[in-house]
Amino acid sequence: MHTAILIIQCKDDKGIVAAVSQFLFENNGNILAIDQYIDEEMGDFFMRAEWELDSFDIKKDDIVGLFGEKVGKRFGMDYSLFFNSPKPRMALFVSKLSHCLFDILSRYYSGQFNVEIPLVVSNHPDLEPVVRAFGIPYHYLPIDKSNKAAQEEKQLQLLRENKVDFIVLARYMQILSASFIKNYPDRIINIHHSFLPAFVGAKPYHAAYKRGVKIIGATAHYVTEELDAGPIIEQEVARVRHHNTVDELVQIGQDVEKVVLSKAIRYHLAQKIKVVGNRTIIFS
Amino acid sequence: MHTAILIIQCKDDKGIVAAVSQFLFENNGNILAIDQYIDEEMGDFFMRAEWELDSFDIKKDDIVGLFGEKVGKRFGMDYSLFFNSPKPRMALFVSKLSHCLFDILSRYYSGQFNVEIPLVVSNHPDLEPVVRAFGIPYHYLPIDKSNKAAQEEKQLQLLRENKVDFIVLARYMQILSASFIKNYPDRIINIHHSFLPAFVGAKPYHAAYKRGVKIIGATAHYVTEELDAGPIIEQEVARVRHHNTVDELVQIGQDVEKVVLSKAIRYHLAQKIKVVGNRTIIFS
Amino acid sequence: MHTAILIIQCKDDKGIVAAVSQFLFENNGNILAIDQYIDEEMGDFFMRAEWELDSFDIKKDDIVGLFGEKVGKRFGMDYSLFFNSPKPRMALFVSKLSHCLFDILSRYYSGQFNVEIPLVVSNHPDLEPVVRAFGIPYHYLPIDKSNKAAQEEKQLQLLRENKVDFIVLARYMQILSASFIKNYPDRIINIHHSFLPAFVGAKPYHAAYKRGVKIIGATAHYVTEELDAGPIIEQEVARVRHHNTVDELVQIGQDVEKVVLSKAIRYHLAQKIKVVGNRTIIFS
Amino acid sequence: MHTAILIIQCKDDKGIVAAVSQFLFENNGNILAIDQYIDEEMGDFFMRAEWELDSFDIKKDDIVGLFGEKVGKRFGMDYSLFFNSPKPRMALFVSKLSHCLFDILSRYYSGQFNVEIPLVVSNHPDLEPVVRAFGIPYHYLPIDKSNKAAQEEKQLQLLRENKVDFIVLARYMQILSASFIKNYPDRIINIHHSFLPAFVGAKPYHAAYKRGVKIIGATAHYVTEELDAGPIIEQEVARVRHHNTVDELVQIGQDVEKVVLSKAIRYHLAQKIKVVGNRTIIFS
Repeated sequence: MHTAILIIQCKDDKGIVAAVSQFLFENNGNILAIDQYIDEEMGDFFMRAEWELDSFDIKKDDIVGLFGEKVGKRFGMDYSLFFNSPKPRMALFVSKLSHCLFDILSRYYSGQFNVEIPLVVSNHPDLEPVVRAFGIPYHYLPIDKSNKAAQEEKQLQLLRENKVDFIVLARYMQILSASFIKNYPDRIINIHHSFLPAFVGAKPYHAAYKRGVKIIGATAHYVTEELDAGPIIEQEVARVRHHNTVDELVQIGQDVEKVVLSKAIRYHLAQKIKVVGNRTIIFS
Repeated sequence: MHTAILIIQCKDDKGIVAAVSQFLFENNGNILAIDQYIDEEMGDFFMRAEWELDSFDIKKDDIVGLFGEKVGKRFGMDYSLFFNSPKPRMALFVSKLSHCLFDILSRYYSGQFNVEIPLVVSNHPDLEPVVRAFGIPYHYLPIDKSNKAAQEEKQLQLLRENKVDFIVLARYMQILSASFIKNYPDRIINIHHSFLPAFVGAKPYHAAYKRGVKIIGATAHYVTEELDAGPIIEQEVARVRHHNTVDELVQIGQDVEKVVLSKAIRYHLAQKIKVVGNRTIIFS
Repeated sequence: MHTAILIIQCKDDKGIVAAVSQFLFENNGNILAIDQYIDEEMGDFFMRAEWELDSFDIKKDDIVGLFGEKVGKRFGMDYSLFFNSPKPRMALFVSKLSHCLFDILSRYYSGQFNVEIPLVVSNHPDLEPVVRAFGIPYHYLPIDKSNKAAQEEKQLQLLRENKVDFIVLARYMQILSASFIKNYPDRIINIHHSFLPAFVGAKPYHAAYKRGVKIIGATAHYVTEELDAGPIIEQEVARVRHHNTVDELVQIGQDVEKVVLSKAIRYHLAQKIKVVGNRTIIFS
Repeated sequence: MHTAILIIQCKDDKGIVAAVSQFLFENNGNILAIDQYIDEEMGDFFMRAEWELDSFDIKKDDIVGLFGEKVGKRFGMDYSLFFNSPKPRMALFVSKLSHCLFDILSRYYSGQFNVEIPLVVSNHPDLEPVVRAFGIPYHYLPIDKSNKAAQEEKQLQLLRENKVDFIVLARYMQILSASFIKNYPDRIINIHHSFLPAFVGAKPYHAAYKRGVKIIGATAHYVTEELDAGPIIEQEVARVRHHNTVDELVQIGQDVEKVVLSKAIRYHLAQKIKVVGNRTIIFS
């Protein structure tokens, strides 16, 4: 089914839900999902509405304009419109670790993700055979201090050529430069192998072991300039015990990482995420 | 803040959200929360809307009638209206086990529950001192086969005298008769000490031990005539290991029971539960 | 590191730990792990001990005999001895669903499992390309009512030819016959897509939806003659809500299934499971 | 049943388990539980053994000496001996929040804790009626900057008079001085309302809200000089969503806090905790 999704932010006021739903109703839109959230501190109203597109009276290209005219202006809304087709195009960045990559490819293979994967980019050659087995091109771009800027330029060119909509860092062990990141604001998803904000940075499982925590976790977040500090999309945890070595924490944690990252991708694909400051609204 | 809550069920159709939200907007109602759910199998639409009452243009007593006239009839709606004040009146039924009772009284004491507790009913005298310490009357009504009908009649009379809105069975170890239950449809909450539908009936922890499960649970549900088969409100689980004895399962399980039961009470008090057949919608 | 693992069952008595640890000490065995459990109902003592083999004074082939003579006879022990090398040989049985298969292959690929996978057996051809990409032979043996006995005979022959130690049913949608099962007692691991004993049999996600549960689960267990009734190895759960369709339950549940099945395989490979009646001891 | 508990630390070596279990066996000790752990980084061996005291051949007062002579010296052991009777004496420190206090008193009332509670100390008068209802003396010692040292001295005197073995800070909102703490090393349990090491210090729920985490937690730890940095005993978490206000985080978190704190108390009472550096071993 073809659907349209509208995500709205404006100052809270009476009559917003009425105005939006009336607009959809008058134009023969069948609402499939509606979710709203009022941030009381900010005084802001947020809303996500999804409706059937096939029977809708307004053409895809005219919706933004007409909605703005009839509803948006009246409430001073920021709003974005999305469609569930054509499929979004996702680039995967990987290094040597395969668990998140496999998990994503497994879901891609079984049709669980409504997505195209036009390419995988890596700073290591190791995972090429796996990726090729799924018929996906693999671009090996090794990175060191001397060539980082040039290689990132090549990555960006590949992303543009492949019309990539968003990027998933599936345990990609290179820090992206600020100039790279600004090309994909709120469109680069990273999985960090700790329960943020605990254990920012390198070797979080070692840090967790040293601190003697009884629970470890993983965090999927949008990448921003500040390391591991971007808006959190999803988190999950697993219980550990004193006798678990760092290697065992790594193994237990990897099971958490892959589930969290795939959930974050699913939310992103369904256009259920709205970034507000450094927080995320996850619409239901 | 005084609020009104409307819970709606009708055949799914275009324009329902628009009509309801327009009705509230036209009468100066500030929507605090709105949640909808479409049951695709049934083809039914469900909605919960909560709005501020103080600034609303329609008097409390007139809302049902006017809403029906303007909106309800048009869509053939079943709908119910609730107010968050005066506080609902909750009766507690207990036997000998104190963990759920304490947990509820603790939340009552700290003001976490928006509720009055006019009485506690028990078939055992043991917990009277605890209950009295909170200033709540305790009615000891022992039950055996010979006096069950008479005692239930006395219980009903107490409930009526105390204008009780709903009943919570906080590990009350007596099966209520069908004739008792029909006085409080979807208004008797029970906590069953297993992850239903596993281990219906007596001694579920013994049964769980015998089956060798690795996780135990608890289930809060509305009481219906069929034992432990009513609509599930909330469930939670805890991990156990082979070396846990039945007594340890009981102890671990009690921590789950009290959390689950208190969550169910909270949903009930907030009017967030809609029973549909033998399932519950828990509005957010 | 080469290790030996001893799993013991006998009537509880004083001096067992002393006798076993003294035997290992006298023969220069460095204990890596020791775990014991007393089943108070049965009055039975259980123990798992793992020690370094390289520096041990007794040859692999002589350990069973000498231990029996010096310790086993004295306490009337049932005991089994295992070694962590050569690697155990695991056969995978699959049908059409790929999520558990991928998860296992992913762990196999990354070296997380200490195992050989000499073959995959399936009653459907669909997953052959995936399996072949990992360099593992795929045997397609379609099954219907008329050929079941003959095909099971072929499966058994393949298992024997490949010296298979144990079998994992990774969402294999065929019920194994009793005569097949008896060849691999406590050595066939199945993943059932419900929180057993709830929802035994076919279509558990449909049954869970219908019952309106708030939590779904998965159960890894050894296969016995009675369907879904064998000793439980591991269970895990996930929270669901009223708006989740059966298809969504399936998707949420698959993430649980694969984690649970892989945990069960890990326990089995590490020789940490002892079946006692219809329960399992999972040594730590 | 009267039991003795031995907790041992020494350099890892062959023959330790044999020596300890032989000592217990020779003196007619029936082992109820034994758990060991080897810290591979430190090269240290840890063990907890619990056995029946009534049938043991050595008198309570002679065990330490004889064990040292026969076993301890040989392996250069640090070891401590505990008995499960008489009951340990626990002091509770509280301020205004009642949820942890109620949870502990509830377990005390139902006999779940093997403990005496000779007194409750508070810097606020609010919870006195609750505590008195359980027949426990309540000492109100208000604290401000000018009187802190003097009031802590009074607290210490009360603790000594009441022969207190350990202290539980059940949401006690005062930082203890270093000089106070050194009187009860590894014997003051605090509950911190975050998933440490995230959100150390004051107002962790506000910090969690601001960071936009999807999971909140609580941590029970032994109190050391450095704030919220002592050895972690237990942690637990709960899932939250973007629409949860800080007040709701507080409410959700309190359910986690009380469960975590009571678990930590249970481990402490059962002498299952061994502090090693800044980590804890929790024996099973």
